[in-house]
Amino acid sequence: MQYFSEKHSAEVVIKQYENCKNLRLKKIMESAITHLHDFVKDVEPTQEEWSYVIDYLTKTGQKCDDKRQEFILLSDVLGISALVDTINNRKSINATESTVLGPFHVNNAPKRKMGENINHDGKGEPAYIFGQILDTNNNPIEHAEIDVWQANEDGFYDIQQPDVQPEMNLRGVFKTDKDGKYYFRSVKPKFYSIPTDGPVGTMISATGRHPNRPAHLHYIVSAKGYKPVVTHVFVKGSEYLDSDAVFGVKESLISEYILITDKNKIKEYGFEDQYYELEFNFVLEKTD
Amino acid sequence: MQYFSEKHSAEVVIKQYENCKNLRLKKIMESAITHLHDFVKDVEPTQEEWSYVIDYLTKTGQKCDDKRQEFILLSDVLGISALVDTINNRKSINATESTVLGPFHVNNAPKRKMGENINHDGKGEPAYIFGQILDTNNNPIEHAEIDVWQANEDGFYDIQQPDVQPEMNLRGVFKTDKDGKYYFRSVKPKFYSIPTDGPVGTMISATGRHPNRPAHLHYIVSAKGYKPVVTHVFVKGSEYLDSDAVFGVKESLISEYILITDKNKIKEYGFEDQYYELEFNFVLEKTD
Repeated sequence: MQYFSEKHSAEVVIKQYENCKNLRLKKIMESAITHLHDFVKDVEPTQEEWSYVIDYLTKTGQKCDDKRQEFILLSDVLGISALVDTINNRKSINATESTVLGPFHVNNAPKRKMGENINHDGKGEPAYIFGQILDTNNNPIEHAEIDVWQANEDGFYDIQQPDVQPEMNLRGVFKTDKDGKYYFRSVKPKFYSIPTDGPVGTMISATGRHPNRPAHLHYIVSAKGYKPVVTHVFVKGSEYLDSDAVFGVKESLISEYILITDKNKIKEYGFEDQYYELEFNFVLEKTD
Repeated sequence: MQYFSEKHSAEVVIKQYENCKNLRLKKIMESAITHLHDFVKDVEPTQEEWSYVIDYLTKTGQKCDDKRQEFILLSDVLGISALVDTINNRKSINATESTVLGPFHVNNAPKRKMGENINHDGKGEPAYIFGQILDTNNNPIEHAEIDVWQANEDGFYDIQQPDVQPEMNLRGVFKTDKDGKYYFRSVKPKFYSIPTDGPVGTMISATGRHPNRPAHLHYIVSAKGYKPVVTHVFVKGSEYLDSDAVFGVKESLISEYILITDKNKIKEYGFEDQYYELEFNFVLEKTD
């Protein structure tokens, strides 16, 4: 019989899990306990520091409601969400990389006609966004679906400002034809801040970090017979690309918005003045 | 510039803390991130498992209120509270070992006269508890204070049953004389269960553990010029001594309750029938 001691702390605790019949749960608990105890031994918290963390986690839980999930935000700013996403979406060499879903996707975004403008609040710099959905052999995928959403010019998603923005502003679902091509109109994204009025904001400012995400468009791209990809396309040259508060940036997901000033092209594409063009192709892997 | 990747995940996240001016906070964040990422890489959680943990932590925070602290309970059953206590109370060779405070101490327990009975609900097996407060050279400490509390025969503390138990049942503060001796009357403690109606209870039962604590008396022993000790005295032979749900047991804190059946002694000590005797000396270290 071994009682609790500093030296054998993790092994004494883990022994109480020896009758856990769910072997996956057992493995997770054993690993969590091992790493937690290693962490405590590394930093040797005072009782006051321990109390602070207990209070911090309690406040994080209590900040959550139907519209706000502060523990996901905490997971995001510690790079845990990005890591879990990456582990679960390891890609073959040329398939489009995934990144974090984030909390602003909605399941009932309107189906839109190819070419439609998803910008309904009239703000921002107009953009024409297009590309193709391909398989890993560079062949077009028929009838692929693109679910797209973004923040508006002021840095907020429609669901963050239900009284300010038109419903379903800057989001929509598009279906490609046989050629796998997509195109729609929107605005060039801007960087924005994650919510900072909770415990996560307290940590961000206490540690000298910033709360900003570089400008990006969100996508879920899917097609029958292929693994869907949840990802962003980031604006090349955006502020905070090198220090995304939630670690979503991958180099392959950065793409350039090219300013179009050619009067003929502006007219041909139905814009009133100069606009940006973004081309991005998505490559999906076959399901196993 | 290094973007997020599975391989370099922790180092990319830690880089965002490079401007943290509070060096203690910086060290804690760096260690937390390193160990969290190691844990995630070890278990490779699915997105569903990650969501479950987010929801579990949220519920744990939301179970907390003025009377219930579920995150402390979670810290307790993972051995973190015991580890933090042990790290902060490393003892010289013969000083009394500490253990966890627990959530049932009150700051305004009544001062009682030496010898008084702290049992006011009439339940349980009577006990006479006594001993001496000593320094590490075995000399008595003058005017030491003993703050004692315990659960009743049914396994609940008075503050858990405000409508059932008399106020301040089974708790009190005693002051020793010059000889450092203490003695009072109470009941032999029983084992009891930690609260299981929250997320901690869910984890305990899902993993095949039990929620019980072996029988014990709580103490805070203090004296001017000495480091106070927060500890328990456990009942030798109690169930669950080898599997305390919160890992409070240390071998040096287990002591025997001896049954006294000698009629003369029963009369001399003012009991009506057989009773238990517990002797336990506390040894305090001088403050630095």
